[in-house]
Amino acid sequence: MKELRQISVIGMGLLGASITLTTLRSLFGVRTVGYSHRASTRRKARQLGVAEEIVDDLSKCVAAADVVILATPICAFERILDSIADALKAGCIVTDVGSTKVLPHRWAEKLLPKNVYYVGSHPIAGSEKRGAEFARDDLFYGARCILTRKKNTSPTALARLRKLWLQLGCRVSVMSPGRHDRIFARISHLPHVTAAALINAGNPEQLTFAGKGFIDTSRVASGPENVWSDILVTNAANTAQGIDKVIAELRKLQKAIIAKDQKRVQKLLAAARAKRAALIRHKMRRKELI
Amino acid sequence: MKELRQISVIGMGLLGASITLTTLRSLFGVRTVGYSHRASTRRKARQLGVAEEIVDDLSKCVAAADVVILATPICAFERILDSIADALKAGCIVTDVGSTKVLPHRWAEKLLPKNVYYVGSHPIAGSEKRGAEFARDDLFYGARCILTRKKNTSPTALARLRKLWLQLGCRVSVMSPGRHDRIFARISHLPHVTAAALINAGNPEQLTFAGKGFIDTSRVASGPENVWSDILVTNAANTAQGIDKVIAELRKLQKAIIAKDQKRVQKLLAAARAKRAALIRHKMRRKELI
Repeated sequence: MKELRQISVIGMGLLGASITLTTLRSLFGVRTVGYSHRASTRRKARQLGVAEEIVDDLSKCVAAADVVILATPICAFERILDSIADALKAGCIVTDVGSTKVLPHRWAEKLLPKNVYYVGSHPIAGSEKRGAEFARDDLFYGARCILTRKKNTSPTALARLRKLWLQLGCRVSVMSPGRHDRIFARISHLPHVTAAALINAGNPEQLTFAGKGFIDTSRVASGPENVWSDILVTNAANTAQGIDKVIAELRKLQKAIIAKDQKRVQKLLAAARAKRAALIRHKMRRKELI
Repeated sequence: MKELRQISVIGMGLLGASITLTTLRSLFGVRTVGYSHRASTRRKARQLGVAEEIVDDLSKCVAAADVVILATPICAFERILDSIADALKAGCIVTDVGSTKVLPHRWAEKLLPKNVYYVGSHPIAGSEKRGAEFARDDLFYGARCILTRKKNTSPTALARLRKLWLQLGCRVSVMSPGRHDRIFARISHLPHVTAAALINAGNPEQLTFAGKGFIDTSRVASGPENVWSDILVTNAANTAQGIDKVIAELRKLQKAIIAKDQKRVQKLLAAARAKRAALIRHKMRRKELI
């Protein structure tokens, strides 16, 4: 791709529809095409006008695209990459917005033709809401986007995709898919699992007394389970290891609480408070918290 | 107490100072006296004008009080009750704002004279902020306050204290201290422990990539460790049992993730999402969420 003329997005959920909508409103002259396999989603996306064209055919969606973005749940990627492989234009860049990156790289390597480029993307944006009706043209504004590359990833394709995410409003970082998946197991997949476990551990009668603390602590568990189960099983080893680590930390606290060892409990809580304070300071300095 | 003429609050932190401040501004003719053992806190409380009088002597603080409210960390209650016992006016109501209620009841029974009344209070208000400088006269507005009573608790004292919390803006519920501590282990103490464990499980380099989900999930862990270690060790058995329950739920998810059993993962996540949705609906109906 010399010039970016068309972006095609597969999947018109919150993320997919926000990408086409932001492109429509800020990237002058770039055509936007969206695909959804559901008639009701296509109707909704058309009504909302989130992309110039909404189609029901994968090959038609990608045929003229300079950039193709997969924005479905992760476990659909393998099948989609297989379906679009023959329809892609030579030189086209394929990416995805999946929250895990090792398997998408592996699938792309296996399924895409040699004359197209794959780079992984993970924009850290979204919410527990779902669907094109929540699409926003400022969803990516100030958000971090991690691009993932392996040794054989084209530097030119990486640079072009980086430019696109910057134009959509993101701050871009680059790392390997392996490092990405290790980090996100800890800071994203694990909080999700922990929030779900916390809610599942309470009975509904107890939960009616829940205050703001509980509501915040459990917020992420309202995310769509199909998206999240894809994320968790495509990052199973890292997530399982993280769960072991959280359980070890819970046991440390439990032991100190049962022993009524105030000093030890305070030390463990103080460590968490200090780490969180450092994190907030870091985010504030980089203006990543609003 | 026939008429409420003086409220004395021991401890001028966020909660204590908010009680005197709200009383000053909304309960006409009720005198407010605050105590702090720290000179710097007394100075700050005087400068901010959160109570009419700020004293450094416990007996002087409570001598003329119709209602005495303990608002220090819980583990100071026993010593304070012992110190004030002889100075209390006959017919005075003693309460506290501690987040656990079984031990405060036990200490009050052991230490207070027969001619004063004890009722437990737990206003579900506050934040991870601490100190009189964050005191607000609307902190209790719309907040739930649980009053705890045992079989021998005076119904008259309970009714009077209930009226006071209603005047401060709370919605009041009444239950036994045992039931209170079982419920709050699950909905408050456990989220705190889980948030701390989650943060302690991550290394600082990973944490710099944390997004809004992690920030929310871990918010409560920024609370003051001295207050929280008191809460946890005074509700040790219930909290320890809750930790076991969370660990069991984490293991269920871990097992399904390792087995890549998408159906099972989705089922566990869907259960959590449904429970949280029901909780939010319940809160919205009762206008407990703003």
